[in-house]
Amino acid sequence: MNYGIIKYIVGSVAKIVGAAMLLPFAVAIIYSEREWLIFLLCALAFGAAGWVITRKKPKNTAFFAREGFVTVALSWIVMSVLGAVPFVVSGAIPNVVDALFEIVSGFTTTGSSILTDVEALPRSILFWRSFSHWIGGMGVLVFIIAILPMAGGQNIYLMRAESTGPSVGKLVPKVRNTAVLLYSIYTALTLMQLALLLIGRVPVFDAFCLAFGTAGTGGFGVLGDSFASYSAFAQNATTLFMLLFGVNFNFYFFIISRRFKTAFAMEEVRWYFTIYVCASAAIALNLFFSGSFVSLREVLFQTSSVMTSTGFASADFNLWPSFSRGLMIMLMFTGACAGSTGGGMKVSRFVIYVKTVAKEIRQLAHPRSVKLLKMDGKPIEHEVIRIVNVYLCSFILVFAGSFAIILLDGFDLTTSFTAVAATLNNIGPGLNMVGPTGNFAEFSVVSKLVFIFDMLAGRLEIFPMFMLLSPATWRRQG
Amino acid sequence: MNYGIIKYIVGSVAKIVGAAMLLPFAVAIIYSEREWLIFLLCALAFGAAGWVITRKKPKNTAFFAREGFVTVALSWIVMSVLGAVPFVVSGAIPNVVDALFEIVSGFTTTGSSILTDVEALPRSILFWRSFSHWIGGMGVLVFIIAILPMAGGQNIYLMRAESTGPSVGKLVPKVRNTAVLLYSIYTALTLMQLALLLIGRVPVFDAFCLAFGTAGTGGFGVLGDSFASYSAFAQNATTLFMLLFGVNFNFYFFIISRRFKTAFAMEEVRWYFTIYVCASAAIALNLFFSGSFVSLREVLFQTSSVMTSTGFASADFNLWPSFSRGLMIMLMFTGACAGSTGGGMKVSRFVIYVKTVAKEIRQLAHPRSVKLLKMDGKPIEHEVIRIVNVYLCSFILVFAGSFAIILLDGFDLTTSFTAVAATLNNIGPGLNMVGPTGNFAEFSVVSKLVFIFDMLAGRLEIFPMFMLLSPATWRRQG
Repeated sequence: MNYGIIKYIVGSVAKIVGAAMLLPFAVAIIYSEREWLIFLLCALAFGAAGWVITRKKPKNTAFFAREGFVTVALSWIVMSVLGAVPFVVSGAIPNVVDALFEIVSGFTTTGSSILTDVEALPRSILFWRSFSHWIGGMGVLVFIIAILPMAGGQNIYLMRAESTGPSVGKLVPKVRNTAVLLYSIYTALTLMQLALLLIGRVPVFDAFCLAFGTAGTGGFGVLGDSFASYSAFAQNATTLFMLLFGVNFNFYFFIISRRFKTAFAMEEVRWYFTIYVCASAAIALNLFFSGSFVSLREVLFQTSSVMTSTGFASADFNLWPSFSRGLMIMLMFTGACAGSTGGGMKVSRFVIYVKTVAKEIRQLAHPRSVKLLKMDGKPIEHEVIRIVNVYLCSFILVFAGSFAIILLDGFDLTTSFTAVAATLNNIGPGLNMVGPTGNFAEFSVVSKLVFIFDMLAGRLEIFPMFMLLSPATWRRQG
Repeated sequence: MNYGIIKYIVGSVAKIVGAAMLLPFAVAIIYSEREWLIFLLCALAFGAAGWVITRKKPKNTAFFAREGFVTVALSWIVMSVLGAVPFVVSGAIPNVVDALFEIVSGFTTTGSSILTDVEALPRSILFWRSFSHWIGGMGVLVFIIAILPMAGGQNIYLMRAESTGPSVGKLVPKVRNTAVLLYSIYTALTLMQLALLLIGRVPVFDAFCLAFGTAGTGGFGVLGDSFASYSAFAQNATTLFMLLFGVNFNFYFFIISRRFKTAFAMEEVRWYFTIYVCASAAIALNLFFSGSFVSLREVLFQTSSVMTSTGFASADFNLWPSFSRGLMIMLMFTGACAGSTGGGMKVSRFVIYVKTVAKEIRQLAHPRSVKLLKMDGKPIEHEVIRIVNVYLCSFILVFAGSFAIILLDGFDLTTSFTAVAATLNNIGPGLNMVGPTGNFAEFSVVSKLVFIFDMLAGRLEIFPMFMLLSPATWRRQG
């Protein structure tokens, strides 16, 4: 294990967190909130600490998958611990575990909250909470890759470990340029969403926070009723942009490079929109025939919010009939596209699962005709299929283990099940007690720690967390 | 597709069902019930029909995996349709779909019921209902293999398609002798359980029915309260025998052939008992600390019943606290051992899933050290790992599809989820409306048809049903 370089990268993360805190500092100054001092001190302290740690560039640049996983896991933990400091020090969330839960929920773009009254918080704190979504959405290490010139071959391993989906690739030959490109698309889309919110008469402060929440598919709001009191235009714009941020960013890259045919032939994106349209239609019909139908706008907003793992709410889907609630749970698991800011297990993985089964049936029927699994016209590598299967098993193990521990708190099965689903898939709200109008405040400390683990495991797609905790990682022998 | 031989084997199944009906016929005579005529006529009609169909032995004996899957699926459907006739004709279950549900639940050893008052039924009908568990437990085609001399190589394909678990093998060089051996062990264990029930002062009629239900890990009872009113001795004996029937029958074969070391080294069997002991202990502690503890006997009975997919109940676990209910749901999915009469996804599959994840972590930590997955000291074939993964995907697809349709009935999420879990894993009872004191009567016809599919898919491990329904199976090209 190359400790030198891990230390160096984690130190860089501390610097980034410090720099990021200058934004809520500015917000505190604008609204004359006394939290300005906290954010300033944090920015200085974390920046200085990071500077001290990264003063010496490591000489040994040997860096492999193992180092990549461990670095990403450690970076996210350090980032969360530092990010929670303003919550605790300002007294906004005095309890350390609660503060950690809230900031991990922010960075992992989950959007689950332990807060019972959001509107009581200072604006600078709310801003930091929402901005954490934006940082976590595309990933802090992707950001570091984009801005920091690094000598070794660590970039691709860091990118693979932090980005989502079964096969993370480079868009352009250089990893660093890929990272720059991703952040540029991300920023451009965020600004568009911000503009639309402002046109939709959302107050400026709210618009910034909500744009961050949409871009990262996070879901923290700034009002008690999440999205219900904003204009229909703002809601529809957000429906659209939640969906857009759930699309594989390769799609945008193809569009930018004028490869429209390749873009629109992307199987994952087609399935993603197909699932979205079918699920929305089914839920709309179910609501219509059960007499509880309100508006198509609400349906489209909620399904987009849950499927992309954002978690904003403009209506309480916990009150919908069983079929609609059940479909919402299923959408939590399929999630958004790989290579997007969205969570869940990712559409491409499900496409591979379905194709595996279909191929098996064809193969059993006609054993002599050998067929390959294909995606976007190209055969799927055996290694990718293997990893996708291992991921499913890992996911089930983490889910079952978490579910068992959460159940000890004694809340009902639907609450417990959807609470795990909502955190492990980085959605935000679940059903019953953790529904859109509820929160995670009443869970025990142990459960909250489990949720913190699940949110990190969900965002980083499990293996970085497994690697960090496995004794095998820390044993010498090569 | 070799239609000739498929017809021949399905015809043989009709003969077996006809012959089996002579037993409830005898019961009707003993208790002077007027149903004797129905069973006699059914026995004659099905026997005659089977005889006509199987008069000509097929000349073409070409038979492969594809034919094996289709034959098994068709045999089970024909067997169920014929088996349901006495229910409908006698007026015991006049509704055709209900009658089909009940007999499929019997043959697949599920034990879910649409009956609201079991005790009102004639004894011959109750006997047939329970006896169907015994027929389905070890499998009707395994029975045919044991008694019918067949020329082609079809035996192994039939056995593979009907038996449970990821890798079905022969115990002795000849498939036919393996089948004879399995049925001998099965019969011997059933007789032991019968003797213990009689010693435990269970009435003779009940003892027969319950022994069938235990042996097949079925779960149909003859009293409204299932097992609660029998003696503690009878309950404990049943706890033990449910567990024994959930053990991989290879274990007994090794015991009989005095290979004790091999028997006790079987990893699946060790995991099976470990999971049982840990789950029971956890539930007992949870009940104890939540103040609702009754007796260790009840805990051991319920966990054994659910984990082996039997479904008898001596206490209403639907009233237990969340943690215990959640663990029961998880036990439904792990299920019993492969190669037993029990259902669920089978312990050996879970062992492979866990080992896959563990190996992945080790491999990522030390990429240069190549390690193989092992089971019972031998490397697991790549093909087995692949099939086990495909099975998991198929299972999830069937589960999700069924869950979505069931939800349209509008029952609560826990009822709907556990109803699918209870039928697809061949358990019997679920939670809430389908809990140990409830039943499946109130579901719509569509939902009942879905459950019928799920029970068959669960018992036959999905692929025979998929193959039967797939157009690829029926297309010519090789």
